[in-house]
Order: sequence, then C-alpha cells, then structure tokens
Amino acid sequence: MRACLWRRCNFRSHECLRPFSVSPVKHERVDVARLLSQQTEANGVDVHGWVRSLRRQKKVAFVAVGDGTTLESVQAVLKPEDAAQLSTGAAVRLTGSWKASKGSKQSHELQVTQVAILGANDAEHNPLQPKYQTPEYLRTIPHLRPRIPANALLLRLRSQVIASLTHFFNQQGFVQTHTPIITSSDCEGAGEVFTVSSNAAKDSEQRLKPGDQAQVEHFFRTNKYLTVSAQLHLEALAQAVDKVWTLSPTFRAERSDTPRHLSEFYMLEAELCFTNDLSDVMTVVENMLVAVASDLLSSHTGAELLKARESSQAEHESPTDSLTAADLKARWTGLASGAWPRITYAHAIHLLQTAVTTSSATFAFEPSYEVGLQAEHERWLAATVGEGQRPVFVTDYPAAQKPFYMAPSPTSSESSGGDEHSTVACFDLLVSELCELAGGSLREHRVQELQVAMQGKGVEGGGLEWYQDLRRYGSVPHGGFGLGFDRLICYLSGVGNVRDVVAFPRWVGRCEC
Amino acid sequence: MRACLWRRCNFRSHECLRPFSVSPVKHERVDVARLLSQQTEANGVDVHGWVRSLRRQKKVAFVAVGDGTTLESVQAVLKPEDAAQLSTGAAVRLTGSWKASKGSKQSHELQVTQVAILGANDAEHNPLQPKYQTPEYLRTIPHLRPRIPANALLLRLRSQVIASLTHFFNQQGFVQTHTPIITSSDCEGAGEVFTVSSNAAKDSEQRLKPGDQAQVEHFFRTNKYLTVSAQLHLEALAQAVDKVWTLSPTFRAERSDTPRHLSEFYMLEAELCFTNDLSDVMTVVENMLVAVASDLLSSHTGAELLKARESSQAEHESPTDSLTAADLKARWTGLASGAWPRITYAHAIHLLQTAVTTSSATFAFEPSYEVGLQAEHERWLAATVGEGQRPVFVTDYPAAQKPFYMAPSPTSSESSGGDEHSTVACFDLLVSELCELAGGSLREHRVQELQVAMQGKGVEGGGLEWYQDLRRYGSVPHGGFGLGFDRLICYLSGVGNVRDVVAFPRWVGRCEC
Repeated sequence: MRACLWRRCNFRSHECLRPFSVSPVKHERVDVARLLSQQTEANGVDVHGWVRSLRRQKKVAFVAVGDGTTLESVQAVLKPEDAAQLSTGAAVRLTGSWKASKGSKQSHELQVTQVAILGANDAEHNPLQPKYQTPEYLRTIPHLRPRIPANALLLRLRSQVIASLTHFFNQQGFVQTHTPIITSSDCEGAGEVFTVSSNAAKDSEQRLKPGDQAQVEHFFRTNKYLTVSAQLHLEALAQAVDKVWTLSPTFRAERSDTPRHLSEFYMLEAELCFTNDLSDVMTVVENMLVAVASDLLSSHTGAELLKARESSQAEHESPTDSLTAADLKARWTGLASGAWPRITYAHAIHLLQTAVTTSSATFAFEPSYEVGLQAEHERWLAATVGEGQRPVFVTDYPAAQKPFYMAPSPTSSESSGGDEHSTVACFDLLVSELCELAGGSLREHRVQELQVAMQGKGVEGGGLEWYQDLRRYGSVPHGGFGLGFDRLICYLSGVGNVRDVVAFPRWVGRCEC
Repeated sequence: MRACLWRRCNFRSHECLRPFSVSPVKHERVDVARLLSQQTEANGVDVHGWVRSLRRQKKVAFVAVGDGTTLESVQAVLKPEDAAQLSTGAAVRLTGSWKASKGSKQSHELQVTQVAILGANDAEHNPLQPKYQTPEYLRTIPHLRPRIPANALLLRLRSQVIASLTHFFNQQGFVQTHTPIITSSDCEGAGEVFTVSSNAAKDSEQRLKPGDQAQVEHFFRTNKYLTVSAQLHLEALAQAVDKVWTLSPTFRAERSDTPRHLSEFYMLEAELCFTNDLSDVMTVVENMLVAVASDLLSSHTGAELLKARESSQAEHESPTDSLTAADLKARWTGLASGAWPRITYAHAIHLLQTAVTTSSATFAFEPSYEVGLQAEHERWLAATVGEGQRPVFVTDYPAAQKPFYMAPSPTSSESSGGDEHSTVACFDLLVSELCELAGGSLREHRVQELQVAMQGKGVEGGGLEWYQDLRRYGSVPHGGFGLGFDRLICYLSGVGNVRDVVAFPRWVGRCEC
C-alpha cells in the first residue's frame, strides 16, 4: 500500500490505476483585456486568441490578436517566417515579451518568440469573411456571427445588464424565481401559442401524416403550450414572498416579420404585493433602468459600445443607421437621470389630436381614443413628450384595449365602472424607435370582479381556476410589469433589429442551428 | 395654458385631461424581516402580511403575521373584537406600535391600533390547511404551496444561489448568455425530446384526429424541439468571448418517475476556451460551489434553513427524512472547504470491486468496468471517498459510455486510441443521495476526430453541420460542464425530492397550472 499519486485524492489504501497526467508547469495565460491594460513591460507572456488581421512586411509581420474579452486586439510582432502559416481567423497561442511600442496606435506590443497554431482557418470556405457582410446574411450563420468583435461586445453587454439587474433586484428585496416554460394556459388569450408534444415524428424532413395519431401522444395528458408570459405564475409566487422577478424565455407563434418581434424572446417580469398605487410599479421600472444605465455609463463595456459606434459610423458600415455615439450616450443619460414623464392615455390622445389640428405632425392613422395608439403615435410621443431621450409612461388605457387581469383605474372604478370609457390602472413605457419597451398594471385582486372581466374577455375556463384561487384565500392588492429584455438590449446598444442582439434568433420560418 | 398638474410631467402646454389621483400620504410599510431585526420601540408601524396563526383570549388576541420575507412572524397584539373577523390565511394590514414584549418567545411585539382585512380567507374551501399535508398532496396545488413558510424559504434560497452564481461568474470573467430553447437538434442523441408546433388543436380536451394534417403546420418549416442542453450552442458562443455560462431551462420527455428527474428543469452550463486540461474545468465547478456554499453559510437564508430543519425534526413532520440540521451544515461545510477528491473511473471500479471482495459493501449490481456505475455505486463512492460530505469527481469514463463530443483522455489517446478501453477526458461529480450533480468534459475540437466519433455514435446528419463548422475556422481546445440546478437546490436544502424545490414542477402526466 502506498499513497495515491493523484494530487488531492484523500484516499490512501490503494494504487491509482490510471492517474491523471499532470501537465508540466504551463505559462500563465493572460487575456487580451487584461494585457492591454498593463502599462509595464513583462516577459513570458502567453496570449491565446484569434488572428483579427495580418500585415506581412519583408523583415517583420504584424498580427492583431483578439480573444473576445475586449473589442481591441493586441499587436503582435513576429518574424515573417513565423507568420507564414497564419491567416485571419486562425486560433493561435503566442508567447513573448510585452514591450513598449514604437507605433502610434498602441502603447505596447507583444514581441513574439514562439507561435503555435491551435486551429487553422479554412479561409476559402469560411462563411464569415473579413469584409462587410450584411446583417441579413450574418443571420444565416448565427454560430459564427458572434466571432465578429462588435457582436461579441453585444454578448458582453447582455451579460453586464443581467448582472446589473440581478444586483438591483437583490438589493431591493425581490426574489428571483424560475417560472414554468411549459404551461396549461395562454395568459392573454392571444391564441398564438406553440404547442408541446412528445414522440412526434422526429425526422426533420417528415411531416405528420393522416393516421399518425399514435405519434401525437399526450405526455402531459392534455395539450400544453410554451409560455407567453410568466405573469400569472409570478402572481402566485409573489403571494408567498412579497416581491418577485424573473428573466425567462417567452414564446409567441406570431407570423409577424418585423425588426421588433421574435418567436422566442426573454422577458423580464416582476410582481409586488401590498400596493394599490400604480406609481409604485412605475417607480420600480424607472429605478431599475436608472441602475442599468448608470452601470453602463461607468463601465468598460459602455465605453466600448460608444467606440464601436464611432468606428462603424466612420467606416459607413451601417449607412442607414443614423444613431451616433453621442446620440447613444444621450439615450443612456436620459435613462440614468430618471424623472421620466408620466401621462395618461387620454392626455396622450389629446396631445396627438392637437398636433394634427395645429399641423405640427401628420400621421397615416388619425389619433383616436377608441382605436388606440399606433406605432407612429407611440414614436411621436417618445420623441415629443420624452424629447427623444427619456422614456414616457402612458397610463390608464381604456379597459377595452387591455387584458382581463388589469385592475380599474382609481378614478375610473369610482365614477364610471364598466362603461366604454372605463380605464385600467396600467402603463406602457414608450421609447424612441422601439415604441413599447415595457408594460405593467395593478392586477384585479378581487375574485368576483376578476370573473366578470374574464367573462367579458372570453377567457373563462381555459385552465385558469387556479389563478382565481389566488383571490380566494388571502388575496392582496398587487401589481407588476413585463419588459422585453431583447428590446432593452437593442435600445441600449442602438442596434436596430432585435434579430441582431439575440445569439440564435427564432422567427417565422427561421430557426438556424 | 397652465402647467400640468401631474407631478414630474415635463409638458407644459396643455391641460391634463385625466390626472392621476395622488394618494394621500401613506404610512411607510415595513417588511417583517426588517421589523424583527429592529430592537428599538417605534410608533406608526405598518405591517402587511398573512395571518399565520391566531390565539383569542378574553381580553386580548395574539396574531402571528408573516409576509414571506422571513420564516418568522411578527407577534401582533389586538383587542379581541378587532380580531373577530380574522382567520388563518387572511391578508391584513396592521398599524400600531412596536413595543418590548413581556412574552418569552419574542423581544418585541406589535401593539395594534388599526386592523384592515386586505383579503379574507375562505378557510373552509382552502386546499391549503393549517396542518400537516403530505408533499404528494401539496404538489397538486403548486399555486398555493409556496405560501407555507418553509416553501417560501426555498424560493429565497434559489434566488440567493442565483445571485451568488451571477456574482461568481462575473468576477471570473465568464459572460452570461441566453442560449436558445427551441432548437433543431438533439444534443446527446437521446431521442426523448419534446416537439414544438404551432396551430395544433387548442382545446385542451381535444386530441389530434386522423385527417387533421393542417393543424400540424410547420412554423419553422421543419420539426423543432425543446433543447436538451445548451452545450452545443454555448460552445459556439465561447469561441466569441472565451468563457461563457448560462442558467437555462432544459427539457426531457422521459417517462421516468423518480425524485431526481423532471421533464423541465434548469441547467447551469459553462464552457471555457484555451484549455486542454480537464482539471481546469473541474476547478471552475469546485470554486463555483465553494462560493455558493460560503455565501450560504454566512447568510440569513442559511440560518433559516437550519432552523427550519430543526423544527421540522422536532415536530416529526418528515419522519422518513433523517437529515438533521447538523448534517446539513456539515454538507455545506464540506462544499465550502473545497479540495474534493478526484479519482478515475477505473479506480472507482477498482474500489467498488475491492469493497465487494472484502465484504465491506454489498450491491444489487456487481461493479463492472464495462457495464458502468449504477446509482448504488455512485452513492457508495460519495459516502466512502467523499466521506458523505465532500463531492467526488470521477474522471475518464470509457468512451463507449459517453456522448460523441468528448475529447479522449490524454493517456488514452496516446496509448490506446479507439480500443474498447479508450477513455474520454470527462468527469461526473457525485454527491450523497442525489448521485450525479454535474458532469463535464474536454470537447473534441478536431473536426475529423469529431466526425469519426459522430459516425461511431450514429449522430451524423441531424442538423449538426454547424457544430462541425466550429472546428473548421479557428478551432480551439476547450471544455465545459453542466450542473443540474434544481438538484443543487435539493442538495443545499436537504429536500429529498426535486419536485418540492421547483415552483411548478412538470413530469410525465403532471403539469399543474
């Protein structure tokens, strides 16, 4: 009997049959973001990354190497013969010294003594080419698209925003929850849901044929759907712990083909108990986005987003996109400064109608209290009331335009309950370009009034008996909201199409990878 | 023209048609967790919550009120006539003074001057009764179950663990990503996937009938599935930003009916580039769980979990559950202290076989290198090698037992590539009771070797051309892991069944709410 050779194995009474090969002492790898921030020279530096660009001269070769930890690259200086096998896109390990640079574009550079190719790039067949490629084309190769540094930056932005939100809600005493994805009900009675089944035809080419009944077996006994909103389940959980939130995937089988819609998207939703004041809910939304924007303004990611926008403007890579770096920064500042306008729906209609009569605006659709706000109206409100930089809360929409679960406005319920002008205690949050970023309301917490509203909207039955139960056994006044998380990433990054901020976007007819 | 009455509206040139009703100054509500920590007396205290219990005496009534922010309740002292309308489960608002208590069970109590019932409890019909109800029964009412304080505590535990993980990965430079839920491929060739379709029969009572072909329209052109793992997509994203992680819902249409399996569950998955050493991956797993357990040991939630276990033991509420508060704390300490044993699969088999020959253990299944580890073997390894408190990494399983994407073990590829004893550079992380908590590997990053492995496992085609692409254009050595997040919550809480730590659990035949 002898001690086990395997380090950290606390077992003694055996001989290790197949011990791990302990690798020889390796260089400590340093990532590009950290190396670029280092202003002192160093030897034995080990950089791993991908070749972003390559310039071969007679006596020397310059290789820009990035690893996705920053938008920037390290300039590596090689002997021409060491760079012979390299090409843009190849993965390399470069070892050398970090030295002050004579070039004007960087303070330091890596003088390379050793090159290893980790993975060659089949440049000829690579669908991703080192030149301008349209967003439409890049959407067909989502598995390679994030290798473009500006897209990698969008991944880091999403991560940072999630971290900001997690911190904000944690500080505010909200409990983060996991609501179900497979559900029995369709929250808003929208009807455009995905159905979930098991044992259906697996061959991707094969469609279900008549007579294939056995293939549509009900794993859950009855039809189940992909969730369209976490809200109803969140309401149940709020009654356990007071304040809850979730950042969850959500699904709509809508055949809409717009820059603002996906079939699979992330929604940030929250519910809070013990409030009968809509402004409490709006304040959570506002404070939350103030926190996110403030973090962004002071972060490295924020600085890189501005830099990326400047260079893309300079290179005319997105000629149709007129948002400058200054515009983007003004947008963040507008978010971070809070104190966003809050106006009622009736007032919004009044403003729109006044704008038409005074000829200060023209619309394709005439603004009408009964018909509701069109996208062009929302854009005008964001541009005018919010001055293009602050989001605008529009509150107290007509009940007829909103789902069954919303509580009446305080003034509405007292004065005009049930008539065609009755309104609900709700809000939409409008921002420039994207229109609706978030929406919320007080929830109807009285069981009889809820039942009447459900009847009125034709959503009785439908497996929502449990939702009514929440109002039977110690119901409390509460409210909440949902925010389109991918749209928020669009708004913060200035990217115009939600398909370009989601790693693997899904919409009608499109589900690559 | 006059200034808008609506506070914070920055619009001046109009009259607000329907201004918000500004509510009169309200008492500042204090939550129960905060109030209980206050050791000084105070007037004008406003508590909102649910009646946990009620004791009426001749001259006074004692009401315990909780709001889910803590396991504990506030003792409220009322006049008997003010408590006449109250019942357990009712939602109330109590206003009064926070005074030092004469009782021995609490330092302070709320002497109530004003009572408002926010929502009565229909006690007779309430499926949740203030007495012991079995876990099996409670699973039929997931919308009410979290109102039991011990279940609310599990919601808070989940939230805290997510916050710990978010902080840990952020600190370590991992980028949090959102991988797709609807996918084209089945990661492990497992076959037990849910299929997604749109426009299927919506009526929950109605099944698809022969001839209903039009109802099974392909929204995405071909069949799509709910993801069984984020890994393949994470590998694509890792090649953009180096290190990535996700906490995502995952699905298996398995008809297994065990305490450890759900059809919908959360997986924590991570991938890291530029490593060819499996121990790098194991170290991430270990450090991550050390961070989670350390946070738990020093947290209020941790203290409450221990307290809840003590009282449930005392009340014999879960007589079959032998885990004491001390056992649970030892489990956390075992996690937090790190330095977990790492042994090879071959060695694990050797230990098991030795235990059989020396009669120190008996198993229903004989330990065999070829057949693989059974649950009973994993339990024995966790109990013996891990001494029941430390997780155990078992590494280098035979390639035949593992999926196509795993890279060969360093020793295996050099000496015995392809033979029946060839192993892969992988690990399973075993813990007591739950067996496998996590699993990971180095990934095969060479395209030809990957293709051979895919052929060998019969997963050619199947829409994974894009996954091979990742190896064609600058591939790098990398590895990653997946951890069953709901199982982790079980392990940390000592709850024996994963159905009781998930708010709305789904398994075969069961999808309530």
